[in-house]
This record gives sequence, structure tokens and C-alpha cells, in this order.
Amino acid sequence: MTQDSIKTRVVGVDISIDRTVFAIVDVRGNIIARDDFPTKTYPNVNEYITYLSNCIIELVESNGGYESIRSVGVSSPSGNFLTGCIENPPNLEWKGQIPMAAMLRDRLGLAVALGNDVHARALGEYVYGSAHGLSDFLVVNLGHGVGSCITLKGKPYLGIEGFAGEVGHSCVVNGGRLCGCGNRGCLEAYAGAKGIVQTARELLEEDKRPSLMRDKIDELEPKLIFEFCEQGDELAIEVYRRTGHLLGISLANYATVLNPEAIILCGGVAHAGRWLLQPTDESFEEHVFHNLRGKVKILLSNLNENDRDLLGASALAWNVKEYSLFK
Amino acid sequence: MTQDSIKTRVVGVDISIDRTVFAIVDVRGNIIARDDFPTKTYPNVNEYITYLSNCIIELVESNGGYESIRSVGVSSPSGNFLTGCIENPPNLEWKGQIPMAAMLRDRLGLAVALGNDVHARALGEYVYGSAHGLSDFLVVNLGHGVGSCITLKGKPYLGIEGFAGEVGHSCVVNGGRLCGCGNRGCLEAYAGAKGIVQTARELLEEDKRPSLMRDKIDELEPKLIFEFCEQGDELAIEVYRRTGHLLGISLANYATVLNPEAIILCGGVAHAGRWLLQPTDESFEEHVFHNLRGKVKILLSNLNENDRDLLGASALAWNVKEYSLFK
Repeated sequence: MTQDSIKTRVVGVDISIDRTVFAIVDVRGNIIARDDFPTKTYPNVNEYITYLSNCIIELVESNGGYESIRSVGVSSPSGNFLTGCIENPPNLEWKGQIPMAAMLRDRLGLAVALGNDVHARALGEYVYGSAHGLSDFLVVNLGHGVGSCITLKGKPYLGIEGFAGEVGHSCVVNGGRLCGCGNRGCLEAYAGAKGIVQTARELLEEDKRPSLMRDKIDELEPKLIFEFCEQGDELAIEVYRRTGHLLGISLANYATVLNPEAIILCGGVAHAGRWLLQPTDESFEEHVFHNLRGKVKILLSNLNENDRDLLGASALAWNVKEYSLFK
Repeated sequence: MTQDSIKTRVVGVDISIDRTVFAIVDVRGNIIARDDFPTKTYPNVNEYITYLSNCIIELVESNGGYESIRSVGVSSPSGNFLTGCIENPPNLEWKGQIPMAAMLRDRLGLAVALGNDVHARALGEYVYGSAHGLSDFLVVNLGHGVGSCITLKGKPYLGIEGFAGEVGHSCVVNGGRLCGCGNRGCLEAYAGAKGIVQTARELLEEDKRPSLMRDKIDELEPKLIFEFCEQGDELAIEVYRRTGHLLGISLANYATVLNPEAIILCGGVAHAGRWLLQPTDESFEEHVFHNLRGKVKILLSNLNENDRDLLGASALAWNVKEYSLFK
């Protein structure tokens, strides 16, 4: 038995704009112990890393000790797999190129892998979630933005410059809505949270039927529209039908060029469940290349929403040895 | 010096519906000697392979002999890289599963790699053509159909079931023209040869300006429309402008999810050169993900049209040892 084979736990660290969450996770994705603190407490990155390291050491020592810990995985916005650095993060306090993986490794004495949130989520699905046992699949995150990760043979495919998977900025309506990126007709402008709300407002203008949405016009967000769907609101259902129609076209185009085994949907918008999934599926089957019809599974993430990003971060840790192959 | 290192030539065999073309090719893509015969002369596949083998032996013996030949590459419609078989070819006389690679290997005593025409063309560009020295690129063939091959690290990426790259059947106009595949709005229905002619006919209906195309309405084909472009015909130019606009959107979507280094255009329609390339480029830059703007090269194949398929077949031969890795 090698030394590694008894190390059945990893540490996952999920850095987001608001909070830094970290936990000890076992091979099955059970969270043994967790803690968190506000990321903004430490605008100086050295102080941040010192504090984070001390917190991790404390958590590990009071939960089975170092012997069981194999490695550390860190998920961060603007995290770069290839360099182990957080690079020019637009939404974090720190600036420039931050060699987070190397700095944490030096303080903890453990191997550290670092990636961005989208790739970490994809690995989380692969290691613990809906993509377990699959080889070539797409994980599409529907939230404020629409991001995705292409996974080939269980490894994120990053493209030549690390931008692969930007399906949210593929064009689904020629000359359509202006997207935040400056282009017109991007999927994100329709299937991102803002886009769904815009669809709802447009629909309420053009269709005069009564709707629960009318009284909440200024508070509309995907979750509320979903709740109205559950109450049988026809226009709310139509909002997700239109969203699913366009999402289905983009996913069909994505699958038609990549021929994956499955597409996993996750993120807040995916909570609309069947209201979104059914029209997406119908449109997907209508538009996908005929030889793939009925063959590409569209699945919802089966990971708990609250743990998903943390599990994604920890999934990076299991792959720490393959780190340099993530290209 | 190993025995292989002095074998600086391969044999390429390009099987098409009409003709079987075969040649001895050197490492630089020079065609040393070539011959051909009508494919349909031998409706019995055993007789076909016996005849083809004898022809190859004769060509090799009168051009430097067996000592210089490293291996054989065969490109065929419905050719399957993974099995070495031609599988249920709808347009050839032979039926069912034809173990072409194994049969030729037994008769010639040389290693044989087999692939389909699209993958062979991509390898041809990689080994001898516009993609030489690139790693991750897309080769898009614009002919009667619109096919493509995704090449990652110089190897065709086939997808889970071998259907990856069907960009011709990605949807570019929601609810648009009926495509031969049964779906609506596929790129092929606009950028394939028939689609371009249909665009020309629609344009002649809606725009009453004079055009050289009006007298040739029943003979229209992409090459003729190109010739009218060269003569300054405004409507002919508009046909390629519309085609390029939609092609640019599809290629931008393709690049946005895959982040490749380059896209190589080949095939008969690509002969329209700048008349197609300029509007394609403009539309591509307008629609591609902003971080990729100006970074993805769209190139025309620089291989001679008459030799392209033969060179593609021979390119398969250089990779014969990696054959089983083509997945």
C-alpha cells in the first residue's frame, strides 16, 4: 500500500466575491467539516492567504489530522488551471497575477490545484455528480451568465487560449438582443437571469392575459417566475417555454459539432426544472443532427446547490497530479 | 538508423463514387506517381481490392520499389477510422461492413490506415497544407454538403459516436429553409452548393436589378456565380455576401465554443475566394466571443484542388501507428 492510498480526503476551497468557503471532503463527496469567512475581510492577498491557511490547518487538525489529506483544490473566479494563478480578477479586491496555488502549497505543505469556477463545477459533476462515469460531456451553467465547460475524457478542454466553452456568447437569434458582451443575439441575452426577466417583460407587453407576474413586474427574477409556473401561471410557463426553445437550439448546435454523451445543466436558472427542461428537450431534439437524435442525455445537476461549488473545488484536488495536462 | 526512417514515401488511395485515385507521395506532399480507374468497374468488393492491390504493386515497383514505402492511407466515404472498415456506404456499390484496411494490408503486406474523406482532408491540411504547424483547428469543407473536422493536437476529434464536426447541420436561421437532413435552418441549406443557388434564385425574385445570372437561371451553380462576381455582377456578389454572413455566424459559434487557432475553408464553394471570404470574415468578427476577436485565422486551403483528396488519403498513412488513438 502506497502512502497516497490511505489519503482518502481532500480540502476544497471555493473563493467567491462574497465568501470563502472551505471544507474537508471524502472520495464520495461527503463534506466532513466546513467553515467560511467573508472574502473581503482581507484586501491584502498575503494576509488573506495567511488567514486562509491557518483556518485550513485548524479545520484539518480538529478533524482527523493531516495524515488523511491528499491535496487541496481551489476554485476561484479568473483562476487559471495552467498557471495556478488567479489572473486579473475583475470582481475581487486583489489585482494582477496572484500565484495562489504556489502560495497555499508553501504554507500548507500540500499539493494544490487551482481552477476557475466553471471548470471546477464540471469536475464536481464528473467526480461526484450527474456526469460520474461519463467521458465526453458538457456542463452548462445557467445563472447571471451562461457559461459552460467542455470535458473530454474527463478533463476540461480549454481551447488554445483558455476560452473554450463560451456557449453563452454563441449567437442564437440573428440580429437579436444586445448582450452584455457587446454582440447581438447571444444565448446569454435570452437564457441568463436578466434575459429571462426581459422575456417576461416583453411577453407581458404583447400578451394581455392575466398573470401573477403583472403585480411583481419590478421584482421579477427567474426563481419567482418558476414559482408562478408551479402555480399554473400560463404566461410564466410561456417565459420558460421561449427560453427553453432558444436554449435547445444552442445546445443542439453545441452537441452537433461535439457529439458528447450528455449535457448537464446547473446553476440557479436550472432550478426551473421541468418548466425549462421540457421545452429545452423538445427544441434540442428538433434541432440536433439527426444521427444524434435521442442519444444525447440532457440532465440536471444532482449536486446540492449549496455544496456544488465547494465540491467542484475539491474535485480539482483529486486531479492535482494531472494538473499540467489540463490543456 | 531504424528501418522506418528510410521509408520516406507512402501510398494514398482516394476512393470516391466515380473514381479511385492512388499515388505515391513523399513527406513534403510531392506526388511521385499516380494512376486511377473508375470505382464502379468492380461492383464486387473482392475483385475491386484485388485489382487495386495489383495496380498499387505495379505503380510502386515501377517507381522506386517497396523499400521506400512506409504505409498506405485510404480515404473513403463512410470510412471509419476506428474499425478500418467502410461502413454501409450509401453511394458506393458495395454494401454492409467492408474491412478495407485489413483486406488491403493482407494483399500488400503494408500497414494500412483508413478514414473518411472529411477527416482525411483535415489531416491533409495538417501534414502538407494551411494547418501545418497548428495544433487545434477546424477544417470546414464547403461542397454539395458542408462538413467539418475538429482537430485537437493534430488528431481528428470524432466525438462519442464518430459524428463530431457536423457544423453543416447546426441551425443558423431559426425556422429557416428545410435541409436535406429534415431539420430547418441548417447551415448546409445556405452554404452548401444547392443552398447558394437557392439564395441566388430568391435574390433574383426580390431584387429586379439586371444580372448576368438571369439568363443562366437553370444552369446556376456556385462556380458560375463566382465567375459573374469576377465580372462585377452586383447580385452575384450579393449572393456570396449573404452566404458569407450566415457562414460567419456559424463559424463564430463554432469558434466561440472551441477556441481554435484557425479555421481552414476548403471545397468547391471555397473557390469563390474573396467574394465569400470577406463577408464571412466580417460576420465572423461581428459574432465571435469578444476575447477571440482578431485571434482566430480564417484561411483558405492552400492545397491544389485536384490533389487535395489524394494528399488527405496519404496523410492518413503517416499516422498509421497512431490509428487506434483516433478517438
